[in-house]
Amino acid sequence: MAGNSFGQAFRFTTWGESHGPAIGCVIDGVPPLIPLSEDDIQPWLDKRRPGQSRYTTQRRETDRVAIQSGVFEGRSTGTPISLVIHNEDQRSKDYGEIAEKFRPGHADYTYLRKYGIRDYRGGGRSSARETAMRVAAGAVARKLLGHLLGEDALVIRGALVEMGGRPLERSRWDWEEVERNPFFSPDAETAARWAKDLDAARKAGSSLGAIVEVVAQGVPAGLGDPVYDKLDADLAKAMMSINAVKGVEIGAGFEAARLQGQENADEMRAAGNAVTFLSNNAGGVLGGISSGQDLVVRFAVKPTSSILTPRRTVDRFNRDTEIVTRGRHDPCVGIRAVPVGEAMMAVVLADHLLRHRAQVGESPE
Amino acid sequence: MAGNSFGQAFRFTTWGESHGPAIGCVIDGVPPLIPLSEDDIQPWLDKRRPGQSRYTTQRRETDRVAIQSGVFEGRSTGTPISLVIHNEDQRSKDYGEIAEKFRPGHADYTYLRKYGIRDYRGGGRSSARETAMRVAAGAVARKLLGHLLGEDALVIRGALVEMGGRPLERSRWDWEEVERNPFFSPDAETAARWAKDLDAARKAGSSLGAIVEVVAQGVPAGLGDPVYDKLDADLAKAMMSINAVKGVEIGAGFEAARLQGQENADEMRAAGNAVTFLSNNAGGVLGGISSGQDLVVRFAVKPTSSILTPRRTVDRFNRDTEIVTRGRHDPCVGIRAVPVGEAMMAVVLADHLLRHRAQVGESPE
Amino acid sequence: MAGNSFGQAFRFTTWGESHGPAIGCVIDGVPPLIPLSEDDIQPWLDKRRPGQSRYTTQRRETDRVAIQSGVFEGRSTGTPISLVIHNEDQRSKDYGEIAEKFRPGHADYTYLRKYGIRDYRGGGRSSARETAMRVAAGAVARKLLGHLLGEDALVIRGALVEMGGRPLERSRWDWEEVERNPFFSPDAETAARWAKDLDAARKAGSSLGAIVEVVAQGVPAGLGDPVYDKLDADLAKAMMSINAVKGVEIGAGFEAARLQGQENADEMRAAGNAVTFLSNNAGGVLGGISSGQDLVVRFAVKPTSSILTPRRTVDRFNRDTEIVTRGRHDPCVGIRAVPVGEAMMAVVLADHLLRHRAQVGESPE
Amino acid sequence: MAGNSFGQAFRFTTWGESHGPAIGCVIDGVPPLIPLSEDDIQPWLDKRRPGQSRYTTQRRETDRVAIQSGVFEGRSTGTPISLVIHNEDQRSKDYGEIAEKFRPGHADYTYLRKYGIRDYRGGGRSSARETAMRVAAGAVARKLLGHLLGEDALVIRGALVEMGGRPLERSRWDWEEVERNPFFSPDAETAARWAKDLDAARKAGSSLGAIVEVVAQGVPAGLGDPVYDKLDADLAKAMMSINAVKGVEIGAGFEAARLQGQENADEMRAAGNAVTFLSNNAGGVLGGISSGQDLVVRFAVKPTSSILTPRRTVDRFNRDTEIVTRGRHDPCVGIRAVPVGEAMMAVVLADHLLRHRAQVGESPE
Repeated sequence: MAGNSFGQAFRFTTWGESHGPAIGCVIDGVPPLIPLSEDDIQPWLDKRRPGQSRYTTQRRETDRVAIQSGVFEGRSTGTPISLVIHNEDQRSKDYGEIAEKFRPGHADYTYLRKYGIRDYRGGGRSSARETAMRVAAGAVARKLLGHLLGEDALVIRGALVEMGGRPLERSRWDWEEVERNPFFSPDAETAARWAKDLDAARKAGSSLGAIVEVVAQGVPAGLGDPVYDKLDADLAKAMMSINAVKGVEIGAGFEAARLQGQENADEMRAAGNAVTFLSNNAGGVLGGISSGQDLVVRFAVKPTSSILTPRRTVDRFNRDTEIVTRGRHDPCVGIRAVPVGEAMMAVVLADHLLRHRAQVGESPE
Repeated sequence: MAGNSFGQAFRFTTWGESHGPAIGCVIDGVPPLIPLSEDDIQPWLDKRRPGQSRYTTQRRETDRVAIQSGVFEGRSTGTPISLVIHNEDQRSKDYGEIAEKFRPGHADYTYLRKYGIRDYRGGGRSSARETAMRVAAGAVARKLLGHLLGEDALVIRGALVEMGGRPLERSRWDWEEVERNPFFSPDAETAARWAKDLDAARKAGSSLGAIVEVVAQGVPAGLGDPVYDKLDADLAKAMMSINAVKGVEIGAGFEAARLQGQENADEMRAAGNAVTFLSNNAGGVLGGISSGQDLVVRFAVKPTSSILTPRRTVDRFNRDTEIVTRGRHDPCVGIRAVPVGEAMMAVVLADHLLRHRAQVGESPE
Repeated sequence: MAGNSFGQAFRFTTWGESHGPAIGCVIDGVPPLIPLSEDDIQPWLDKRRPGQSRYTTQRRETDRVAIQSGVFEGRSTGTPISLVIHNEDQRSKDYGEIAEKFRPGHADYTYLRKYGIRDYRGGGRSSARETAMRVAAGAVARKLLGHLLGEDALVIRGALVEMGGRPLERSRWDWEEVERNPFFSPDAETAARWAKDLDAARKAGSSLGAIVEVVAQGVPAGLGDPVYDKLDADLAKAMMSINAVKGVEIGAGFEAARLQGQENADEMRAAGNAVTFLSNNAGGVLGGISSGQDLVVRFAVKPTSSILTPRRTVDRFNRDTEIVTRGRHDPCVGIRAVPVGEAMMAVVLADHLLRHRAQVGESPE
Repeated sequence: MAGNSFGQAFRFTTWGESHGPAIGCVIDGVPPLIPLSEDDIQPWLDKRRPGQSRYTTQRRETDRVAIQSGVFEGRSTGTPISLVIHNEDQRSKDYGEIAEKFRPGHADYTYLRKYGIRDYRGGGRSSARETAMRVAAGAVARKLLGHLLGEDALVIRGALVEMGGRPLERSRWDWEEVERNPFFSPDAETAARWAKDLDAARKAGSSLGAIVEVVAQGVPAGLGDPVYDKLDADLAKAMMSINAVKGVEIGAGFEAARLQGQENADEMRAAGNAVTFLSNNAGGVLGGISSGQDLVVRFAVKPTSSILTPRRTVDRFNRDTEIVTRGRHDPCVGIRAVPVGEAMMAVVLADHLLRHRAQVGESPE
């Protein structure tokens, strides 16, 4: 009810503030006998970790995850899996200005309006630091999916497809390139231009927005629970719940609204015992249920609100003032949203796979 | 778990198939003592009802809603409110082709893959007819919001802002115009052009997509439950769960990803005891909590898949074939999605208002 | 959240007041392809139906259930199953006294305190009439269990084991006798004495309490979700939620507290590939998970509060007064609680069977 | 869905195994601005802590609780409160026998049947150690209740009312005595006899069962959500979910089934502006809603299954064998169930108080 849990059959609850002693999550519903150790989780956290290039915040977080429960002799037991990351980089500092003023584009004002109190240290609970636990839960979801569907049967990958209004060139899409540049870009040429764009924005005391695309290949047909917990509806919620996300679309998305009926509906052909679709405007979902095509979701990330350009705001005594947000902030939070989006895709699929087993039985082929 | 319920504190469950004896919903959690009768619900259903212009399906549905429980002497009692609409227009007909073939862009294929059985009569459960009960639940939510926040304190209105790739002209926006044309367009001029566009599409055996915008004015600050049940995350799920919706955005939405940091973050100024924002790119939500600004959500509706242009598909024996979907279908389902989107906005706000009371206490001002 | 739903994977929501137009329930999560018609449900309702002997209320209810959705060509489709019973015997009468006074032992006072309004017609939502829908949901649960575990693999039966402080004689237990007397007694001799006891109580303007035992044979080992949704915890909730129930126990129950450690713990022996327990004090549950032994639950039903003996009470203006509850009331509501208890056993098992499938996979053997 | 959470509006999730690195819980839904520190929680844990008399296990646990999140400058912030206790007394030992054999009366067999794997170290997740986190959550619930209803407006107290078949003498009930003897007995004389009984049982290699009574005074009228989440139904689930509990009753409980109608229903009288009940057989609940009377629940705790008397069992290869459970075990687990029962009462009331606010508004008086 109070909003810190996600999923139903695969359900995780996160806790912790940016500058508290630790952050963590508890995952309930994980099937037993899944091989699991910290080594299955840590690489995904490392991927999200800041300080890896000059394009992400230089805040140092080693982010070592520790499993506290639910695993015995290297395998899940079916009991809750508790994960914790101790916060290390809590440099003692003066929070004076953030404590007193509401940063535009941040949750400072609304948290105070809602709760009558806010933990202003580093944004408290509204900090993007919370997304580390999404990535950790996503890593467990990936193990679950591999265990139930077959190792590598399902591949979940994300990429940055637009930054600062500059889209990549889809004809140059190369998944392997994603690992090679600091932007998770599948297009090296565009990555190079983004580097310049972002350097320029940062020098100007500004920041850039971005669009992230996450694709799941190998999703079995039949996942999703109409009519309110449609697979795409749950994906929309999952992605929109990530910090700074302002829009979500599936398949052709908003462009679908500009197509004509005969262009949009994906035609079908028999292909042996199976079925082939001649296009994928649907993005892998029909009526809220996966069709077996690639599941494609995109989401828009607004530009970082913490910038060096002075902005007008009010303080907690409701006096007009200005604020400059110094400190170590990502000039484009969309970059690090890529592994977070992948993780949310993984947890949605894990949840719906278990839900499908509850109602319909064994995993769909 | 099986997906036919929405909301937590204000929670409704819908049931029924397009061509079954009836459709209905049960709403649990409605506060007691709210004045309520069928007359509070029927007008919203009438607004959504087909057959009101030549731009919506000519299927005749009087859609008379009946309250079955939860109301005593004109007021809610706090017990479940059961609403039912009996299906009238079940003309006996041959479902042969639809029974045998998968309509592209429809849920025919995926329902069968998931459940191993499908009620093909009129689309069964996947029919847009289900949205009538969303509108009914939304009407009850509106009464609740009026009762708790003050009559007319909160205004929820929707409009079509784009059809077939043609956006309206925002400078001509007039809410009163919305009631005067068959497109829920706030811009009469654009409405006239849409009329021609839609006539042309229909004559060509095609259909058009659309974009709907729903605005809630007067939303109190403080609604929303971070971090997973953010107000915008729940809105995204609500809208994406509507039939044919492929994208959802809040405030500046995807455009926010193209703004620079200093453009996007809405600056604040003191205004007496309150606060004024100098822009509303955030669309009324910061950190998942309402800010008191207008809550603005848009969603993309794909073009109707039921068209007269023959499309390639397979039948249930997995043989290649073609299909033409005759019958009475909306050439642009986006039009009738307007009242549905309004209803989903209302139920999300009602749910979060009650959830806010649970954790924080009385309704926010 | 507002309490009118039960279960998670097999989840039903009931609605309706005693003297409203109808009562109903919606069941979500039912697996597809289960053969189902009204004929599978009606016999269980008939078993609970009043007016079948002089020991139950003479209120006439034919209680014809109608399936409104979720079934196509005789089989479940995986979509919500809506069931409705229209109320027939709403004889127009003067509710004056019940409308004005709080009946001791009834929910009149507490409903008004909670909601500030109450539907006093026949007890409204607090009427035992609601239990008809539990029986209907239980009938669907039985079909599900038979479908997934094998027809007749699981047998759920209930009996009255004590009335008015007089227990039956367990050495005479005969399940077939249960069908032959109006008390659901497995012991004919005790049934005869209960008949006299109950006649005497009724003549004295009084009523009797009773204890019901429900046994499930053939429950697969492994059902139940520790630690809060233990199988016995969910059974305790299920039974305590039935009108007039004041106590629930599993296996040896309260007597277990009077045993010594070596008497209570059920010893185990190998029996071929399986295991045999040498006793069943546990009642079929260890650590919240079924052991494969008979699942045994008992619950205490208080005597009917609606009696002809005048009782002191207050009216809604908080003036001292007396009340005599005339009308057609069961002199021992415990009798008709037997099929209700069976139904609640069935829904708990159906729910946990589906939940088990979600987390662990196929149905346990 | 997987069972490790309790409550809806006040919802906590516990995690951790007996001999893992730590145990913990996350509480979501706590209202903001409640004063809270470890000092509010630790005393309740100390009350439950073992090793305080010779009648409880000598296992040494200092059980220091640490707040990890959700509290800022001494007050709750409305974000999840994470509590952790590090396990200290994990003496390295040989688990050989427990690892190989199923202890009768324990969950060893059923966990393995359900999950196909079990963490046998100290009982793993099925250990009573889990109840420490219930007590911690209960302490937070008490703070919440005090904050919302007024300090000390609501008093929750538990006592042992029977041990080894020997009930206390209710005429000697003295709440202050509860703190003075190691049995939480409100009757000093009976406590002295229990001491002898328990010494005798332990010397005989046996153990004793017990009955616990928990009373809440000052519960506002109006709490509880009919019909499935009745206040008594939720209490029944809460208590039955505690390790070793086999029965739960409310008010007169099973005795109510032996009363006549006119004896059982509690009569009412006007008392100024309020109402007085002339008895409390209902135990403070009518129709699932609190009446304002004392809320009275009792539960039966079976005798400890870990005893020195050899018992027949099988090993994991399904061979007949015997087992003697050595080690430091409570000879009567019912004693330490008293603070656990109090905690579960507190969390149920906190949950229903918040739920009541959601649907009906401000806290009832």
